Amino acid sequence: MTPIVLSPLGELENASEFIARHIGIDAADEAVMLKTVAAASRAALIDDIVPRSIARSQPMAIPAPITEAAALAELKAMAGKNKVLKSYIGQGYYGTHTPGVILRNILENPAWYTAYTPYQAEISQGRMEALVNFQTMVMDLTGMPMANASMLDEATAAAEAMTMALRASKSKSTTFLVDAEVLPQTLAVIQTRAEPLGISVKVCHNSDELAQDSFAVLLQYPGTSGVVRDDRALIAAVKARGGIVIMAADLLALTLLTAPGELGADIAVGTTQRFGMPMGNGGPHAAYMACRDEHKRTMPGRLVGVSVDSHGNPAYRLALQTREQHIRREKATSNICTAQVLPAVIASMYAVYHGPAGLKRIAQRVATLTAVLAAGLKTLGYALANAAAFDTLTVSTGDATASVAAKALAAGANLRLASSSSLSISLDETTTRDDVAQLWGFFAKPGQTLPQVADFEQNTATLLPAALLRSSSYLTHPVFNSHHSETGMLRYIRRLSDFDLALDRTMIPLGSCTMKLNATSEMIPITWPEFANIHPYCPEDQRAGYAELDEQLRAWLCEATGYAGISLQPNAGSQGEYAGMMAIRGYHEARGESHRNICLIPSSAHGTNPASATMVGMKVVVTACDANGNVDMADLKAKCEQHSANLAAIMITYPSTHGVFETSVTELCALVHSHGGRVYVDGANMNALVGLAAPGAFGGDVSHLNLHKTFCIPHGGGGPGVGPVCVVADLVPYLPGAGVGAVSAAPLGNAAVLPISWMYCRMMGAEGLKAATEVAILSANYISVRLKDHYPTLYTSASDGGKPGRVAHECILDLRPLKESSGGVHGVTAEDVTKRLMDYGFHAPTLSFPVPGTLMVEPTESETLDELDRFINAMIAIREEIAKVEQGVWPQGNNPLSHAPHTAATLLGETWDRPYSRELAAFPLPSLKSSKYWVPVGRIDNVHGDRNLFCSCVPITEFA
Amino acid sequence: MTPIVLSPLGELENASEFIARHIGIDAADEAVMLKTVAAASRAALIDDIVPRSIARSQPMAIPAPITEAAALAELKAMAGKNKVLKSYIGQGYYGTHTPGVILRNILENPAWYTAYTPYQAEISQGRMEALVNFQTMVMDLTGMPMANASMLDEATAAAEAMTMALRASKSKSTTFLVDAEVLPQTLAVIQTRAEPLGISVKVCHNSDELAQDSFAVLLQYPGTSGVVRDDRALIAAVKARGGIVIMAADLLALTLLTAPGELGADIAVGTTQRFGMPMGNGGPHAAYMACRDEHKRTMPGRLVGVSVDSHGNPAYRLALQTREQHIRREKATSNICTAQVLPAVIASMYAVYHGPAGLKRIAQRVATLTAVLAAGLKTLGYALANAAAFDTLTVSTGDATASVAAKALAAGANLRLASSSSLSISLDETTTRDDVAQLWGFFAKPGQTLPQVADFEQNTATLLPAALLRSSSYLTHPVFNSHHSETGMLRYIRRLSDFDLALDRTMIPLGSCTMKLNATSEMIPITWPEFANIHPYCPEDQRAGYAELDEQLRAWLCEATGYAGISLQPNAGSQGEYAGMMAIRGYHEARGESHRNICLIPSSAHGTNPASATMVGMKVVVTACDANGNVDMADLKAKCEQHSANLAAIMITYPSTHGVFETSVTELCALVHSHGGRVYVDGANMNALVGLAAPGAFGGDVSHLNLHKTFCIPHGGGGPGVGPVCVVADLVPYLPGAGVGAVSAAPLGNAAVLPISWMYCRMMGAEGLKAATEVAILSANYISVRLKDHYPTLYTSASDGGKPGRVAHECILDLRPLKESSGGVHGVTAEDVTKRLMDYGFHAPTLSFPVPGTLMVEPTESETLDELDRFINAMIAIREEIAKVEQGVWPQGNNPLSHAPHTAATLLGETWDRPYSRELAAFPLPSLKSSKYWVPVGRIDNVHGDRNLFCSCVPITEFA
Repeated sequence: MTPIVLSPLGELENASEFIARHIGIDAADEAVMLKTVAAASRAALIDDIVPRSIARSQPMAIPAPITEAAALAELKAMAGKNKVLKSYIGQGYYGTHTPGVILRNILENPAWYTAYTPYQAEISQGRMEALVNFQTMVMDLTGMPMANASMLDEATAAAEAMTMALRASKSKSTTFLVDAEVLPQTLAVIQTRAEPLGISVKVCHNSDELAQDSFAVLLQYPGTSGVVRDDRALIAAVKARGGIVIMAADLLALTLLTAPGELGADIAVGTTQRFGMPMGNGGPHAAYMACRDEHKRTMPGRLVGVSVDSHGNPAYRLALQTREQHIRREKATSNICTAQVLPAVIASMYAVYHGPAGLKRIAQRVATLTAVLAAGLKTLGYALANAAAFDTLTVSTGDATASVAAKALAAGANLRLASSSSLSISLDETTTRDDVAQLWGFFAKPGQTLPQVADFEQNTATLLPAALLRSSSYLTHPVFNSHHSETGMLRYIRRLSDFDLALDRTMIPLGSCTMKLNATSEMIPITWPEFANIHPYCPEDQRAGYAELDEQLRAWLCEATGYAGISLQPNAGSQGEYAGMMAIRGYHEARGESHRNICLIPSSAHGTNPASATMVGMKVVVTACDANGNVDMADLKAKCEQHSANLAAIMITYPSTHGVFETSVTELCALVHSHGGRVYVDGANMNALVGLAAPGAFGGDVSHLNLHKTFCIPHGGGGPGVGPVCVVADLVPYLPGAGVGAVSAAPLGNAAVLPISWMYCRMMGAEGLKAATEVAILSANYISVRLKDHYPTLYTSASDGGKPGRVAHECILDLRPLKESSGGVHGVTAEDVTKRLMDYGFHAPTLSFPVPGTLMVEPTESETLDELDRFINAMIAIREEIAKVEQGVWPQGNNPLSHAPHTAATLLGETWDRPYSRELAAFPLPSLKSSKYWVPVGRIDNVHGDRNLFCSCVPITEFA
Repeated sequence: MTPIVLSPLGELENASEFIARHIGIDAADEAVMLKTVAAASRAALIDDIVPRSIARSQPMAIPAPITEAAALAELKAMAGKNKVLKSYIGQGYYGTHTPGVILRNILENPAWYTAYTPYQAEISQGRMEALVNFQTMVMDLTGMPMANASMLDEATAAAEAMTMALRASKSKSTTFLVDAEVLPQTLAVIQTRAEPLGISVKVCHNSDELAQDSFAVLLQYPGTSGVVRDDRALIAAVKARGGIVIMAADLLALTLLTAPGELGADIAVGTTQRFGMPMGNGGPHAAYMACRDEHKRTMPGRLVGVSVDSHGNPAYRLALQTREQHIRREKATSNICTAQVLPAVIASMYAVYHGPAGLKRIAQRVATLTAVLAAGLKTLGYALANAAAFDTLTVSTGDATASVAAKALAAGANLRLASSSSLSISLDETTTRDDVAQLWGFFAKPGQTLPQVADFEQNTATLLPAALLRSSSYLTHPVFNSHHSETGMLRYIRRLSDFDLALDRTMIPLGSCTMKLNATSEMIPITWPEFANIHPYCPEDQRAGYAELDEQLRAWLCEATGYAGISLQPNAGSQGEYAGMMAIRGYHEARGESHRNICLIPSSAHGTNPASATMVGMKVVVTACDANGNVDMADLKAKCEQHSANLAAIMITYPSTHGVFETSVTELCALVHSHGGRVYVDGANMNALVGLAAPGAFGGDVSHLNLHKTFCIPHGGGGPGVGPVCVVADLVPYLPGAGVGAVSAAPLGNAAVLPISWMYCRMMGAEGLKAATEVAILSANYISVRLKDHYPTLYTSASDGGKPGRVAHECILDLRPLKESSGGVHGVTAEDVTKRLMDYGFHAPTLSFPVPGTLMVEPTESETLDELDRFINAMIAIREEIAKVEQGVWPQGNNPLSHAPHTAATLLGETWDRPYSRELAAFPLPSLKSSKYWVPVGRIDNVHGDRNLFCSCVPITEFA
């Protein structure tokens, strides 16, 4: 037999297969693209772009890539080190049943999880309807007229409510009173947030203390001990003094209890976790915030409102965006961008699925089982600390405390040590009769007869206070009363997702937002029970798998960034930024230089930067940019000198928000350092750096990362995010949880989505991560070059000695001249182009950031050459359409651009009197005929929406 | 504190919640519907319909319903009794990595798994493209010019090939020669199939034996021992004698080995399991069949072909349907209806994802690791039975056989006992170097030095015979070479699924096909590793969970049907039917009455009935139906008397294919029994019986069920199905695997989807199952009544004493008069209505079965009243459109019906010269404007497709 030798075994292993799955182009595509951008190789292109002064000399010490199967096996073993016990810990985290139809068709469905924030409203109607459902659900249950589209967690929501109250309060006090019944993690975040703002936080143990002078009080309903208290008198007293009342309230309890709004509260906050989102070791979950009408314009976070489209039909959009940090910059009162859209969608769908009667039944069952549990415990001789209760009992266990807890633990149940002599037990949707019987067993003394659940089947009185029983109705809108069969629910979910454009149908070339592949193998582990069903406050050994994940991921991210220490706690980029600025503040304070409070920020910065600086008590000084969009070093130098004694920090983005690698960055860092300031490098553009240059090595002192950008956590339609904060060695003592207090409710923040980034790094390895960066840069340059004759790129750069005209991983297309050339005031705008792109089946690039009238395009490494070309061809075709307006073939204001996007209903109307054909409107490129996305609404009127603010479900009659 | 007592705990438990999720209507809807059909209650309606003589007096002894969470927990515990070991057993079942993007977006995605068989071609283009990819993949790899769209399993495919060869062979022989290297399960099924047809099966151990006189030979490539043999000379010899050569071939091996077509074989069969479908204890997997051009019109199974649509564009459709059993009836040569579409789609997508280079690499890695394993075993002193090998080695282990196998088992690995003195080992895609090293450890004797994989990294010769190395290319079409990034793959999958209408977007009211909810909680368990990763031939104790599932499910199905024994082995309804008829045959034979070979079949029967009867060697005698569509009892009596001595069986469907409960059924059964015949009750309409009447109790002797109809296994676009065969006590000895041989390859057939039906029964309980039946009947009657003035229902009935005019769970709408009234030969046809329904966003009902020119509507219990009304409104609106043709407002052949379905491209063309508006064509009902399905192609030309048969991927140029 002739021996047949194939490739060496090592090559056949194909351990780097995933790299080719993640990166959209193959070797042949790369050759075409390199030729187009006139670069000899990928390495040569990078040499043209990345300044020598910052380029890495050593590869990242991140393990070599392994296959998807191998990585999943490795992570599964790690997950196995977590222990899934029954949790009775409560404190804002409860067992819940995610309805299967929601689990599979939303949480595990790329049509939902790969969507972007709904800035382009017309192609985001589906998730905005879900968010309006969320807002309606929160308004109804809290009894408030206004609610936003989610907050990061209950603790940060409470902290945001505190600062909101400070603005709204008529009191001159700077004292914030917190009920001792408030959840400990909420108190911790509030203390962190209050300190730099000069707010004095005082914990109160009774109504008298809570009625003292303050600008606001925070109550918990039900309390951490489980108590359900009627605070109407207290609330009235606080308000009579001009104070603001904030209630942190449990939404499930509110199906039975009088709503905060009905009790007189001004602001309500809380979590929606138990509405279908697994505990996930603390997150991600959607928190909520609701308020009285008079406070709505100062409420932080995103708000979805109803407006009308160009045909007069109801349509959703983000409302009151002028409140947001990217508009208000240093005047912003919150730095929040990302919400928790995906968890909010799930919570809202849980309410749609169960409806008011279903939710009430779940709550009644919890309350009744809690009462049964209490009755049994009493027969066993135990006293309860709380007579009134919804789902939580605090049991006086005296000397038996440790032994009862140990017995429970041994049987696989976590109770909460409420004090050295008491245990608390929280029940939830997943608790069964058998569980209650088992719980009694833990408490029974030897020889005691155990109570039987059967004895309490009928007529067990709940522990709900009669005075607080809810009488008002909620969730009366048809959407909460129509989709209760699984078939109906499935179709509702599908219909909404079909309205939206996500990564499963098109590239989303959003500058600075890095919409890359969220691979299935990265997503699969997040719903493994070993990750999903962990309570964040369970004993540490039950979280050993998470601890290992945390440790490994931090080590890899340190490698990627060049920093010495990282915390994964911040659960959004904004929180990472905040934590980073807190670290700088902590550093100066520790050195006795707390007077250092000047933060320099280049004029091109994203609005979160000044907002974050303000939140830590710093004063923002804006430094100029030159004509090329780079930091004006002369101005910077002058500002540094002017503020030398008080210089705290500079916040820059690198590569810059203009999409270029500024060559002066090392010089800039040295300059700021020489004046005693620290350098904050915003990690938004990290996708241009990984493997090529490390901010912690070239002069940065602090960065935050956006794991939901560079490290593959999907955007989820606008959250969850993860914003780790990374620091150099001397700042490590000031990371969250160390020198600085907690910045998020859960110790590991949005822990449950961290496996995504872990899988990405593990499957890519150092070589893959670097290749991804290089291809991201190649793709951006390819687009820039291919479009240069149609839309010039505004800013380009070259490395020291590199070829000029290069961009980083994104490029800003200048559309400003087109408005003039196509008619000035009524000419074609960049916005028209974003809307026309919808007709071509695309999600538009970033509009008017950082430069008004431009589009910033970031293709990422995950797009195929076919898709890049499809986009380029669309942009060129649109340019030809603009030319027809320039030439007067089509009049201003009556052309395919001004009328874009075109709904099918418009195009197929009985009459058609436009100067362009229906066919051209719908199918400007022939390829669209075989597969086209149809926009569900016409262009949305933003002004109308803000003037007629309406943020709950649209009455059915409106659609008539 | 005032005690607040809520509902009793038992009510709050809501154990029957799932019933309300499964059933689409609620109490309020039911009241509306009952009023419409003029029934006082659901029970009263059922009394009107189900004959007293058959109505159950006792409820089914099926456990009470439990919640989804509780059922999942119970099943998880059962699954835990299976043991997932590493499998080296092979024999057609291998470890495989399902690519995550395929797992999540196809196998776990309702857009794919809830689709129906693609009879309505225009709304099935997505899955038909996937099936054409499948056919192309099979053709390319087997080197054959024609392949069908999948077979049930390799064994039945081989059996079908045998009968196909019998028809095609020029030899007069009735001997079928089977290579001893053929898989044992294939041989078993062939033996079962051959016997009633008078085929003599002979197992041959060498080329000489295989070259003996026969009508065909079956070879296995590679063989069961692992051997890879060059049979070119043998093949030529067989063909020279006029025989047909069938090769069962492994597709992965064919990426490296010369293709069967190139070796001269006439027919190739095999499984595609290892292309991404988990082993699942034996199924479901897609088998394949490919053949030479001259045999294509006699090939069984479904075939997707390319035709053109009304605009001349390429479009897919089922080709050569005239071959199929529902057309050919007793002349049919196979009874196969259902294919394995979902597994076939997955296998094709696996090929699209990996491409030819990727598949080849996987095969090379397997072949190389096998060679490494062999080399190491040799150094340990073992001899191999097969010198040439691809993935399987048979090792001579002599006395050590048992101890080696035991050592492996203890370490978690299953080897195969090839004989008392040899073990075989099959490697696969999932095998790692560590696995090979571990395998050596099992074989090493005490003190022996273990080989190291590292020693074989380079230059290890494979065991592939040089003469058989493949030189031809394959999978050269762009579809196999374009979607290799995950992003690209994801979008391809999404694009295809968007072309199709499945249950996630609309009801699919197919008479006799029961397209009900496939609940997520039913689907979730099938991808649990404990069910998915079980080899069907692993030791029994490793399948203990499956055994328990089998036992419980059979017990519940016995309760539901009234039978004494059931086998779940048949992996499609057709196989269940076949097994049932084999049982009757076996019974007569055992009684020495093998002359009984007459099978009576009413003229209204589905075509599979006569086909199945023929396959077991019976002679079909058709009995008449009366004007009401019922069995003509007088004619039946006459036929019974005429054939009394030879009467074997009658095959009826109950309720009848006409959608009515015939009151004479008990009389009919008694009559047949009195002549010594047995009664086969086709279970296609079981959805009208469960909980109300049991065929095994009212006179049936045998039935098959369609778990993919009544018991919630999704249709998967045309398979997998499960067709259990149920028998009365005296026929139990003749169930498959008992008195009758195997009818499917795997002992438990499509085992991996059985958890779906188990979950359904467990969550519904007896009460829920009965309620489902009642609501299915109510919904059908509601539609019948609401549409009676527009489309009369052809057949109705009443129970003894019941109100007349009722239907069972489906109704036949008579559209025949409309053709006449709208113009005769060019009038509006029922087919026009099915196509126009697509414009309204619906999947059409069953067309022209059982009565030409009618539509049979089966709404099922899972549809909401909203959806029923939406359908009714569409049908009424269409009737109004037909009226306009009748009135001459629109001409014949140029109206919205004749031009339906309308693509967006047509509607938005530059010119429009039709007598109806574009708007009316697209949005005949206003509700369509807010959410519309757009059909991707115009009406497809069936004749063109069969005249110009083309069944592989369309060249890209065709789309230009």
